[in-house]
Amino acid sequence: MKTDLYHLLKEPEEETSEEKIFSERVSQIPRSFLREILKIASKPEIISFAGGVPNPDFFPIEKLKEAAIDVFAYSGKEALQYSNSEGYLPLREYIAARYKITNGLIIKPEEILITNGSQQGLDLIGKLLLDKGDKVLLEKPSYLGAIQALSVFQPEFFNADLREDGIDAEQVETILWENKIKLFYAVPDFQNPTGISYSLERRKELAEIFKYHNTIIVEDNPYGEIRFEGKVLPSFKNLLPDQTILLGSFSKIIAPGIRLGWVVAKKKYMDKLIIAKQGADLHSNFLSQKIIYSFLKNNNLDNHLTRIKEGYKKQRDLMLELIENNFSKEIKITKPSGGLFLWLTLPEKADAYEVLEKAVEEGIAFVPGNTFFQDGKGKNTIRLSFSSCNETTMKTGILKLSNVLNNYIQNLQLK
Amino acid sequence: MKTDLYHLLKEPEEETSEEKIFSERVSQIPRSFLREILKIASKPEIISFAGGVPNPDFFPIEKLKEAAIDVFAYSGKEALQYSNSEGYLPLREYIAARYKITNGLIIKPEEILITNGSQQGLDLIGKLLLDKGDKVLLEKPSYLGAIQALSVFQPEFFNADLREDGIDAEQVETILWENKIKLFYAVPDFQNPTGISYSLERRKELAEIFKYHNTIIVEDNPYGEIRFEGKVLPSFKNLLPDQTILLGSFSKIIAPGIRLGWVVAKKKYMDKLIIAKQGADLHSNFLSQKIIYSFLKNNNLDNHLTRIKEGYKKQRDLMLELIENNFSKEIKITKPSGGLFLWLTLPEKADAYEVLEKAVEEGIAFVPGNTFFQDGKGKNTIRLSFSSCNETTMKTGILKLSNVLNNYIQNLQLK
Repeated sequence: MKTDLYHLLKEPEEETSEEKIFSERVSQIPRSFLREILKIASKPEIISFAGGVPNPDFFPIEKLKEAAIDVFAYSGKEALQYSNSEGYLPLREYIAARYKITNGLIIKPEEILITNGSQQGLDLIGKLLLDKGDKVLLEKPSYLGAIQALSVFQPEFFNADLREDGIDAEQVETILWENKIKLFYAVPDFQNPTGISYSLERRKELAEIFKYHNTIIVEDNPYGEIRFEGKVLPSFKNLLPDQTILLGSFSKIIAPGIRLGWVVAKKKYMDKLIIAKQGADLHSNFLSQKIIYSFLKNNNLDNHLTRIKEGYKKQRDLMLELIENNFSKEIKITKPSGGLFLWLTLPEKADAYEVLEKAVEEGIAFVPGNTFFQDGKGKNTIRLSFSSCNETTMKTGILKLSNVLNNYIQNLQLK
Repeated sequence: MKTDLYHLLKEPEEETSEEKIFSERVSQIPRSFLREILKIASKPEIISFAGGVPNPDFFPIEKLKEAAIDVFAYSGKEALQYSNSEGYLPLREYIAARYKITNGLIIKPEEILITNGSQQGLDLIGKLLLDKGDKVLLEKPSYLGAIQALSVFQPEFFNADLREDGIDAEQVETILWENKIKLFYAVPDFQNPTGISYSLERRKELAEIFKYHNTIIVEDNPYGEIRFEGKVLPSFKNLLPDQTILLGSFSKIIAPGIRLGWVVAKKKYMDKLIIAKQGADLHSNFLSQKIIYSFLKNNNLDNHLTRIKEGYKKQRDLMLELIENNFSKEIKITKPSGGLFLWLTLPEKADAYEVLEKAVEEGIAFVPGNTFFQDGKGKNTIRLSFSSCNETTMKTGILKLSNVLNNYIQNLQLK
């Protein structure tokens, strides 16, 4: 196990051949250490708190199967043929209508583009908006997939610290005054990796700032519908509709293997996004679009969501309880009211990679928080996902992890 | 109908706002006039020879349905979960094994990346290899989707004429001596848009030239398995395995709505292609990968291919016969031994857009060949797809088109 991990921690090899084969941009995409950890974490002998993956027990397998049978029986020829780049219109209508209920947003179906998960949305937005050297503001820490997707287009990244109530508005304002920031990428609800949500006050304050500076906001919201308590807060799309591009996904609320997400953007962006989508892969999987739509048409999504939210809430509660009862008091924890993640902050001197090595030896995996920082910071932080374990596994795993962590911190203090 | 067409023929609007919103690259992606024509062509009152779409009557709907039921029943949790970026290993093993049978190619599964149709392969290859200003050689005419996908990365395009036996080797050699061409994109078997296949001699001659100049060959082969007569010829991947990146797809041989293709490349490319795939959309639709694999495992693909090849051959034969018996002798036709397309060359003075306008009024659609030229040439050419019509529709459509064409040519000669 150790060998794997040491191998992963090494920097990727540099291009050595005399002739330059690869594009400049390739060397700028950070390697996804996270996905490499997920490979280790996927070994059956490992209890994993690493992946931001939904609990497969919550997948509506039977109902999706019925939906698939329905599609093959009644519209097989259509579902298996080429389709338009924008996505299946009834599905876009469904998503548009749902935004009105969940967020009070008035979205037209033609403002929605169906993508291969929201990750593709990020790729298309990068293509559309970013020239080399354009300036992008991120939360610190930030979602690694976004950094990867946007890096391809060689922007210059800026970061402002994420606080308990959202990104630090003062830092944001300073950065915006000093730099022409083109795009701000954020996950304001149950953020990945921290689980933090922006407060109402912070949202309004930031909206004012971004409005003044005319910054495009890319608001990624894959977890918004997985809320355990509290009220839905206005999104940036509510506060600054013209300036905000919103990303959504079925991955967390239905299933990720079906790879369907969407981008919501005003017409001026959408026309060009569709051209970029054509170039990227013509259109999203049409069979999956038809299956998801048939599922949504024949089932009540809210009933499904109630069920999975209860499940995830139980898992969050159990993990928080186990941590509270067993982890050293030196470790700080976020208490998210939704989503899939908790965030641990160990004492300053700690190095989560060292903890991970010991944890993997005990058959436990998680993601060192440093992975989500671009400036090498966050070495003493850890992302734990409470989404993918059942009760027994979680108990075993967290108790083992508490031993590893508590011993590590004790040794650290003795040094 | 006329309004639609005139609207389409207009150039897209330029960005007029004071502030530059979009990336430089966006303005360089050619608008897909083809996909716009396909929108007209998809209207039920239109008989379309425009789309390069497979005949939906040939989709193995029942067997794919059984495959889907099988996947939901036995591996629903796995199929609906996140998966690896490379693609489902058993599917990659199947593809690798098939290359040995069909092309005598020894491909390792780890040299295969599953993509959202081969179109995404082009996007990833562009990302991987092309910096702004890098030089790319294309066939003239060339597949528009490739031009679109690669344009995003702002290369400089070069073209050499496509002859009856492949791209003009003399022109290629001159271009390669005068320019450091990084990448050559070609469809050597039953090319889109012309239906032309490279002769054995031409393949060997070109392989020598590309070997000498160390040009990367991107060989796109979506139609190779739809051969009606004649022997499979060695691909560039056979002739120059290290230098060739090969693209394949299930779109034409099984169904496009399922959006699965693949890239075959040596490890040095593959490692970085996988990172680019992660950034682009994490991984291809896993449910579809499992369904296709289950279909392939439980059915004999060759039996399916025999059936669809017979069908397409009949369609090609009928279209050729109708053209031969009805079209003006002034019109030259390619006679492809596979694939989906015929290519018409009208007298020099003719303008296929003018023909299209009249044809649409008669309820017939096709793609003006000019669409596939980057230098505005080919105004007197037409791509006809024989793939998507049944016998009766084809007869009606080709007879109507012959009236439009013959009248047009007669008037042209009177002018």
